[in-house]
Amino acid sequence: MTRNLRDRFFAARKLTVDLVKPLSDADATVQSMPDASPAKWHLAHVTWFLESFILRDHVPGYRAFDDSFAYLFNSYYEAEGARHSRAARGLITRPSLVEVHAYRAHVEAALDAHWNNLPESALALLELGIQHEQQHQELLLTDILHLFSQNPTYPAYWPEPVVRAVPDAQAPAARWVSGPSGMQLIGHGGSTFAFDCEGPRHEVFLQPFALSSRTVSNGEWMQFMNDNGYGEPRHWLSDGWAWVQREHVGAPLYWQQDRDGQWLSFGLDGLRAIDLSAPVTHINLFEADAYASWADARLPTEAEWEAAAESHDAAAGNQLDAAGPVRPNASQAASLFGNVWQWTGSAYRPYPGFRAADGAVGEYNGKFMSGQFVLRGGSCATPRGHVRASYRNFFYPHQRWQFTGLRLARDV
Amino acid sequence: MTRNLRDRFFAARKLTVDLVKPLSDADATVQSMPDASPAKWHLAHVTWFLESFILRDHVPGYRAFDDSFAYLFNSYYEAEGARHSRAARGLITRPSLVEVHAYRAHVEAALDAHWNNLPESALALLELGIQHEQQHQELLLTDILHLFSQNPTYPAYWPEPVVRAVPDAQAPAARWVSGPSGMQLIGHGGSTFAFDCEGPRHEVFLQPFALSSRTVSNGEWMQFMNDNGYGEPRHWLSDGWAWVQREHVGAPLYWQQDRDGQWLSFGLDGLRAIDLSAPVTHINLFEADAYASWADARLPTEAEWEAAAESHDAAAGNQLDAAGPVRPNASQAASLFGNVWQWTGSAYRPYPGFRAADGAVGEYNGKFMSGQFVLRGGSCATPRGHVRASYRNFFYPHQRWQFTGLRLARDV
Amino acid sequence: MTRNLRDRFFAARKLTVDLVKPLSDADATVQSMPDASPAKWHLAHVTWFLESFILRDHVPGYRAFDDSFAYLFNSYYEAEGARHSRAARGLITRPSLVEVHAYRAHVEAALDAHWNNLPESALALLELGIQHEQQHQELLLTDILHLFSQNPTYPAYWPEPVVRAVPDAQAPAARWVSGPSGMQLIGHGGSTFAFDCEGPRHEVFLQPFALSSRTVSNGEWMQFMNDNGYGEPRHWLSDGWAWVQREHVGAPLYWQQDRDGQWLSFGLDGLRAIDLSAPVTHINLFEADAYASWADARLPTEAEWEAAAESHDAAAGNQLDAAGPVRPNASQAASLFGNVWQWTGSAYRPYPGFRAADGAVGEYNGKFMSGQFVLRGGSCATPRGHVRASYRNFFYPHQRWQFTGLRLARDV
Amino acid sequence: MTRNLRDRFFAARKLTVDLVKPLSDADATVQSMPDASPAKWHLAHVTWFLESFILRDHVPGYRAFDDSFAYLFNSYYEAEGARHSRAARGLITRPSLVEVHAYRAHVEAALDAHWNNLPESALALLELGIQHEQQHQELLLTDILHLFSQNPTYPAYWPEPVVRAVPDAQAPAARWVSGPSGMQLIGHGGSTFAFDCEGPRHEVFLQPFALSSRTVSNGEWMQFMNDNGYGEPRHWLSDGWAWVQREHVGAPLYWQQDRDGQWLSFGLDGLRAIDLSAPVTHINLFEADAYASWADARLPTEAEWEAAAESHDAAAGNQLDAAGPVRPNASQAASLFGNVWQWTGSAYRPYPGFRAADGAVGEYNGKFMSGQFVLRGGSCATPRGHVRASYRNFFYPHQRWQFTGLRLARDV
Repeated sequence: MTRNLRDRFFAARKLTVDLVKPLSDADATVQSMPDASPAKWHLAHVTWFLESFILRDHVPGYRAFDDSFAYLFNSYYEAEGARHSRAARGLITRPSLVEVHAYRAHVEAALDAHWNNLPESALALLELGIQHEQQHQELLLTDILHLFSQNPTYPAYWPEPVVRAVPDAQAPAARWVSGPSGMQLIGHGGSTFAFDCEGPRHEVFLQPFALSSRTVSNGEWMQFMNDNGYGEPRHWLSDGWAWVQREHVGAPLYWQQDRDGQWLSFGLDGLRAIDLSAPVTHINLFEADAYASWADARLPTEAEWEAAAESHDAAAGNQLDAAGPVRPNASQAASLFGNVWQWTGSAYRPYPGFRAADGAVGEYNGKFMSGQFVLRGGSCATPRGHVRASYRNFFYPHQRWQFTGLRLARDV
Repeated sequence: MTRNLRDRFFAARKLTVDLVKPLSDADATVQSMPDASPAKWHLAHVTWFLESFILRDHVPGYRAFDDSFAYLFNSYYEAEGARHSRAARGLITRPSLVEVHAYRAHVEAALDAHWNNLPESALALLELGIQHEQQHQELLLTDILHLFSQNPTYPAYWPEPVVRAVPDAQAPAARWVSGPSGMQLIGHGGSTFAFDCEGPRHEVFLQPFALSSRTVSNGEWMQFMNDNGYGEPRHWLSDGWAWVQREHVGAPLYWQQDRDGQWLSFGLDGLRAIDLSAPVTHINLFEADAYASWADARLPTEAEWEAAAESHDAAAGNQLDAAGPVRPNASQAASLFGNVWQWTGSAYRPYPGFRAADGAVGEYNGKFMSGQFVLRGGSCATPRGHVRASYRNFFYPHQRWQFTGLRLARDV
Repeated sequence: MTRNLRDRFFAARKLTVDLVKPLSDADATVQSMPDASPAKWHLAHVTWFLESFILRDHVPGYRAFDDSFAYLFNSYYEAEGARHSRAARGLITRPSLVEVHAYRAHVEAALDAHWNNLPESALALLELGIQHEQQHQELLLTDILHLFSQNPTYPAYWPEPVVRAVPDAQAPAARWVSGPSGMQLIGHGGSTFAFDCEGPRHEVFLQPFALSSRTVSNGEWMQFMNDNGYGEPRHWLSDGWAWVQREHVGAPLYWQQDRDGQWLSFGLDGLRAIDLSAPVTHINLFEADAYASWADARLPTEAEWEAAAESHDAAAGNQLDAAGPVRPNASQAASLFGNVWQWTGSAYRPYPGFRAADGAVGEYNGKFMSGQFVLRGGSCATPRGHVRASYRNFFYPHQRWQFTGLRLARDV
Repeated sequence: MTRNLRDRFFAARKLTVDLVKPLSDADATVQSMPDASPAKWHLAHVTWFLESFILRDHVPGYRAFDDSFAYLFNSYYEAEGARHSRAARGLITRPSLVEVHAYRAHVEAALDAHWNNLPESALALLELGIQHEQQHQELLLTDILHLFSQNPTYPAYWPEPVVRAVPDAQAPAARWVSGPSGMQLIGHGGSTFAFDCEGPRHEVFLQPFALSSRTVSNGEWMQFMNDNGYGEPRHWLSDGWAWVQREHVGAPLYWQQDRDGQWLSFGLDGLRAIDLSAPVTHINLFEADAYASWADARLPTEAEWEAAAESHDAAAGNQLDAAGPVRPNASQAASLFGNVWQWTGSAYRPYPGFRAADGAVGEYNGKFMSGQFVLRGGSCATPRGHVRASYRNFFYPHQRWQFTGLRLARDV
């Protein structure tokens, strides 16, 4: 965070463009499921956010690049008026990818031109704009991964060869590491950037607990599968068991067996043999909870995780630095940050004293506080510098197309 | 709890029979939605629970009343084997209501005959059997109410005349009452009966807060409606707003307007004019949360509610004593117990140190701990003596066919 | 048709009551699928038809038995105003079966009292009322059969023992019988009763053809199954193949295998071993067409069937005479009438010159003339005297809960 | 048909390429509904058809352009093995449009190289290949129209200005024209190309009838709408009325009202004011039938239409000659061919003596013969030369994204 706002802003914008370089117009347009959005939509939506909340609201006389874009590229801001149906985002073949890039350039040029005249409140929104762009960088990658996984030819997004895992290498044994218990302070305080849902900072009382020294590995997950983990209802939450049966689930998302029974996983670098020593990913809350039950452990609460993580470097670990293949790796599985988002056992609810911000930006977080669970720590697809100990990510318990994994906890 | 177990057991069994006296065979058979069960199923299921976990497991030589009943009347115990699909419970026209009553009598006679020889572990299951029966008494009433609400002729289950509300009477002004903050102990401890999910007893740290002196009234809810409460997205959780729009919701369940625009509500005593001074009921978590947002307040957490309620008499208030019309009433709206279950802002999750019981009975609570919210305090349909300060009821945020209402909270 | 109208009317009414004698209130109330209706609804609906179109329209001063019944028991007559949703018919637990019987008695008494004063037009409607009642007698039986098939205990509606089929007896070999070709007259003419869709009588030109001397037997169907008939797409219409795969179909409706692999079929007399020599039934158009394709034959057109059937006695064969177990039997499989409705390859469309009747009664047939196929000949559940050579029954190609079978045809 | 096969083949291939010139890679990839296919899929599928049934089967040593294409671009030929799910065709962003064009060029070059050595049976398949390509040209245009209609910016596919209709001009009055009745021969005979479902040629007997001298116009349709045509159940088939209510239909597909209440229709040339004198289009069978009922007329049978059309020039009228805006026009509304496909009242069923061809090509038509209705005459999007008097097009009664209209008939 030492670089100034302007440099960080344009660096974030450039990283987005780097990430989409392998995309064709078609790749950028199709929506593979309602949870995902087309890459073109991500590219335009983050730009609409800047155009609306900064240029339109703070630059007198600014004229919109295209009047139809507010309708097409608003995500969920009710206060901003009618918008295109989320599930129909993939039907918008025009504007083209080239036109969306022109839109990005236009808004960037306008911001550049007016930068020095922006009021303080707009600068805070620019900071939010960077953070927002970074969130969509991760979503963009996971949405593209999902789209490509639907193609029977399994195209690799970044087809460069990667160093292969040692066959059958297993992760080193995990240890239990005691966390800080008793009265603890969690939540974001101070003046640095954080999303509204991360605060207020507040006291909680924690019973003694320990966290595993690393996240659960693919090799351990294979043991769970071989021990009939997906077939034994007693491990599962009731909603999770219904999901397993309805969807006929027997492995993490993107895993498949080849004709010889060998397990492969599909990633942005294509189909690869499973690296047993690397962290398991693309599992949902139901699977994480069932695994913990099978392992006679539990998921950490978000307060436990945060209390344990506060003393760690949030910029460490396997996180996104530049465009190129991303995969969870074995060598950094001990880091509390990076590799895979870690499911916690905490429902995503407001902290004591939480108030949503006023205006449209107030819709950023608070209204999603039902039915979802908190994940912590960032992943290999999270831009480095984006995540914090207090950072609260959240998804529904059935969702698993993000880089999601788990770290076990237990009472001591 | 001063009466002995045997008296309480047979009294509970008798109350069930009293509650279903107005039911025809058809009334008792039909299932009006997947969330609800036929009355006949409730009558048989609680009996199957006793037959399986006490007679079969603890009385040597006991022979099942009918071998097909285990399949028909198991609710959700995976460990007990295959069972009839929940959504198809309403297709079982045979056995008849008369046969189900015979089943009840048979199992009661067998328990009576063997009572004095039952081991200690079976006695604990008998206590659980009473509690289980009481839970189904409440469900039975709310399920019948839902069924009758689907009949365009709106039959009254208990058609006796009731004393009518004074027209336009409003509830007295609500006050804020400070609750106990700082370190608090919540959860069930000691040796009296409680469900496994109510414990362990544990310390929590509470910020200063206040609870309203009474639950929200129908009159206040009418103000929310008149102020476009159902039409203003900023009050609503995102999932709640989607629900309002998808289902075209504009009032609590069972409310309807007559030709003159007068609001009526349907209850077990038929269609009645709304009593403005009585607690609002048949609202879901989304509605409760939106109302709180509109009222510039919030829902209490379950820890706040329990800390405030521990010093109150859980057997007070408007609760179920005998068969006959039940409705939330105005006169006891201040009581923390009875009238309407109060939605809390807490997701239903395990307490620190929670472990589910072993065996089939272990499926009673723990596996439902995702996606649901906690309600507290009992309702007019809860058998008196059943509820406690530590009692955790839970439903999904969209459900509203129970007697559910809300009590506001705020930070102080 | 020799008996007078009055005798036939009251005999038809009595047969309905005889048919429902084994029904409990619950049996009569539940709706097992949207295509089926509760028995209570059938009992009331045919009575509402008489009450509305005869008593209300032709008896001055007649007062409805219950004003809510027009809403509850109108089936599909748009001109008669709003009506209860078809899929929700099973939620009407009140009025009870006893009250519906009282409704029937009330309407019958009123008709009896006014019989001699009814105008000619009302007498025509009484004839229609008999025919309508007979149609619902068959539907009532097939709907009850479907309901009971959903009960895992497989209750027998008429549990009396029946004479058992000789094990492994096969139907006698079928022969091809030439039908009348060239210019033929089909459709109903003359003054006797027929539904509007059976006319006008008109000329058609038929190529030479032959019909099988009997309907397809269960034994032949078993050969189709053993020859992978349900697994070979080339036999199937495209919509049929999609249905087979979506529903995982591998046998006629109500067939199941016991633990020894023995095939059983469920009927109104309970679960029985398959009688190989009896006509196959409970198959849909897709299955009938696939079988014909497998057998290197085809379905007859309705014109072919009618031209062949005109010289036969429509009152012969296995048809419904009185309450009691009905099943297709082997001994009368050669008859063109009775046993099983025979799928034709003809879509249900209007004859040249067809005009629907005026008024609500005009909705009886014409509006159903899209998407359905014609069946001919009546079944074991069709009241004897109801069916004619020109009689056109019709169902959607996926439906198979009626007593439906097939008779092969071919070009010669 | 005077040109030789080779010239016609390459001309047809070139027209396809001309038609897709305005498409971007994204336009060509997205699937807007399960009934429609992406343009890229059409381009590749017709090429796969040629590659499989001609090159693979008849050119020794031919190697497939890409082994994955058989899976991706088989439409519905069960005999050809597993294939990609129809509803997921829009997820295939790769191969790109450029690669699909390369595939087309490759297969054309191979055919060109081997043309003179192809056996007679392969030449018949080449003729089928042309006809197949022409069918997909029309589908390609209607699918693109549907896709663009989903874009809130309503892009014009061919944005060139067109001559505008005279405001409020109405079509000339329609007259009744007697058709040939009595014994008639219909169906295709002789040695020229026709699809298998068009034969055998056979005798039918027709009652006297008349056809309208032109198709129904937009102005007449507006009268139907203004007379509450979409709101009056007695005009509608039962399934049609259910469709109107479920989908809230009140106008043909692609019609919309601007803010002043002016009706516009969307076409390949963008949003335009309705030309009242032009034929109505984008209506389904239900709408056509309801209109005919409202107009006190009926739809023609396919035999009536064909008997009347046999003496007309099938190459006349408004049909597709080259890439460029296509719309039904007023000036050629009298022609029996072109402008809009005319719904008949005939279900799509086999003619007497029909036998599907052997092998995979036998799946071309016969298996679709349930649930669909026949349309006749071709449209403005049908390549000129493709349609015949005996040509049977078919769609489900709810479908209306083709250029479908109607011509009234009546008994005389």
